[in-house]
Amino acid sequence: MTDTFDFDRYDRIRPIRWTGDALELLDQRKLPFTVEYVRCETSDEVAQAIHALTVRGAPAIGIAAAWGVVLAARGVQADDGAQAAERLQAPMQRLHDARPTAVNLAWALARMRRVMAAAGADWREVIEREAKAIADEDLAANRRMGALGAALIEPESGVLTHCNTGSLATAGFGTALGVIRAGFAQGRINRVYAGETRPWLQGARLTVWELQQDGISPILIADSAASHLMKTGAVQWVVVGADRICANGDTANKIGTYQLAIAARHHGVKFMVAAPSSTVDMATASGEAIHIEERDPGEMFALGGVRTAAEDVGAWNPVFDVTPHTLIDAIVTELGVIERPDEAAMRAAFGG
Amino acid sequence: MTDTFDFDRYDRIRPIRWTGDALELLDQRKLPFTVEYVRCETSDEVAQAIHALTVRGAPAIGIAAAWGVVLAARGVQADDGAQAAERLQAPMQRLHDARPTAVNLAWALARMRRVMAAAGADWREVIEREAKAIADEDLAANRRMGALGAALIEPESGVLTHCNTGSLATAGFGTALGVIRAGFAQGRINRVYAGETRPWLQGARLTVWELQQDGISPILIADSAASHLMKTGAVQWVVVGADRICANGDTANKIGTYQLAIAARHHGVKFMVAAPSSTVDMATASGEAIHIEERDPGEMFALGGVRTAAEDVGAWNPVFDVTPHTLIDAIVTELGVIERPDEAAMRAAFGG
Repeated sequence: MTDTFDFDRYDRIRPIRWTGDALELLDQRKLPFTVEYVRCETSDEVAQAIHALTVRGAPAIGIAAAWGVVLAARGVQADDGAQAAERLQAPMQRLHDARPTAVNLAWALARMRRVMAAAGADWREVIEREAKAIADEDLAANRRMGALGAALIEPESGVLTHCNTGSLATAGFGTALGVIRAGFAQGRINRVYAGETRPWLQGARLTVWELQQDGISPILIADSAASHLMKTGAVQWVVVGADRICANGDTANKIGTYQLAIAARHHGVKFMVAAPSSTVDMATASGEAIHIEERDPGEMFALGGVRTAAEDVGAWNPVFDVTPHTLIDAIVTELGVIERPDEAAMRAAFGG
Repeated sequence: MTDTFDFDRYDRIRPIRWTGDALELLDQRKLPFTVEYVRCETSDEVAQAIHALTVRGAPAIGIAAAWGVVLAARGVQADDGAQAAERLQAPMQRLHDARPTAVNLAWALARMRRVMAAAGADWREVIEREAKAIADEDLAANRRMGALGAALIEPESGVLTHCNTGSLATAGFGTALGVIRAGFAQGRINRVYAGETRPWLQGARLTVWELQQDGISPILIADSAASHLMKTGAVQWVVVGADRICANGDTANKIGTYQLAIAARHHGVKFMVAAPSSTVDMATASGEAIHIEERDPGEMFALGGVRTAAEDVGAWNPVFDVTPHTLIDAIVTELGVIERPDEAAMRAAFGG
């Protein structure tokens, strides 16, 4: 086991590539069967790619939108940043509207607008630097998170993850998958299990593929096999991401996460949430206050155009669930580790 | 609410039909998209249908095999049952070998052989009566089980089930789905949720379809949404079947059942196992002694015939898991209800 390792060796996938004159996005709708980058030369092409889920994952969407602003600037003449911000209002709004519920998208656009408005004649260089900074900071945060999270894991452990929280969802390295990459590189983790994550199969389609690219061979399981797996003693930690972390440490994440947390506690398996500090929402007191999005029941009935259930069936298709902080052993952000999170520990770490 | 009800109204599906000169089997490989009976005029056609999963579910397979013996007898001349049993050895062996691991198949064939060997010149009528008795007794046991199980459920409850334990797997009415049918007919149950049951989707393909036929509209959920569902208060009971019940009350059932039991206990939701007494195996002390069959990992890579995971992926595909008796509130057989099952209660009910 080692505490240092070569990050790059386990971090080869980049879903977002800036070529200097265009943005290339790894088409996540076609993975794992086709590895293909979509080239965007205008901000509206970027907005369309975000809308169509060519790029997904909250941090990745924010980064793509930032580069979209740089592309939008190409067609605009302005004496300074304030004038540029004025003239770029319409394309930035279209980027914003591509997926209006993604917090990171609005956050990244607000950050771009702020530095642009404060810039002088060199506003073009300033916003290009800022887009690069957003991407670089995301990657750096993930690597920091990975090292912090991995340090909690005993050597030769097995881990189970859910959904996709990897390179594909970020600038690179990933959040929960970053912890797993770091743990694997250090010899702390030697078995990685991935739940397939119905109904969208992000685990089967994306997580399994991206870990394979980095030389980590995950084992796919049905979501319903997780408890039986834990009973065999094969996993010591469940490591997942988060879409929102409340002021008391309750977290919202992909449907099925809560079930894993209950099963983990039942078996004495530890439960870790890894997410950037931008996911922390100190304005929401607890998970009770989170509205759980429910999607089209039709997602439960078909796959790839092939119907898998009877006609005229009712279905319930919640996208997220809430894991109460009492079932979480550690929340890991790039700022540090909060063990046994509760309101006091969260306030000490994040204020508010 | 009522304690009596019209059984037939909620029990319209018959996967096995005896026409007097042929056996018709509802083709479960084609459900729910095509409702089609396969006609078998010889015992070898029945053996082939069992082998090919045209008919599935342990009780249903046993019944089909019994009728297969009746068809085999057509081509045989014999003075008495003993001679007939001798001459029918080869086709009965072929029926037995169609799925050698199904306990009910061997049980039904042994029963047919026993009554045949003891019969005189009327052996043909005797075995036809016996095949009919096997089917009729299964249906009666399921209706008895349904009434006993439903009586445990408070009015206006919601229930969650897993896999398919219905008419399709039996002579009719079903085991766990029989309890749900009875509870629905009595007004005890007014919401039925069905887990889709990856990887084979028995819930999505079979349970949802068969309940619809009987005027019960189930709501399909991803297996991973069960805990979130319980948290909403929508279900008061989980009702499942069993493939084996051990001497201490531990039960083996479809993968995912154990996870539901853990989640149910966590939320104060009750957990019921409904299965015929033939499922009880007093020779197996506890679930620890049950070997869990693992199937081809390839089953995890496709859904409805569409590939869903990357190539060259490892997968773990256990078919069953074991639910310890400590997580079970009631085991229901046609002989009665065992609440809070343990070794003493099981021995009192089943001897051994």
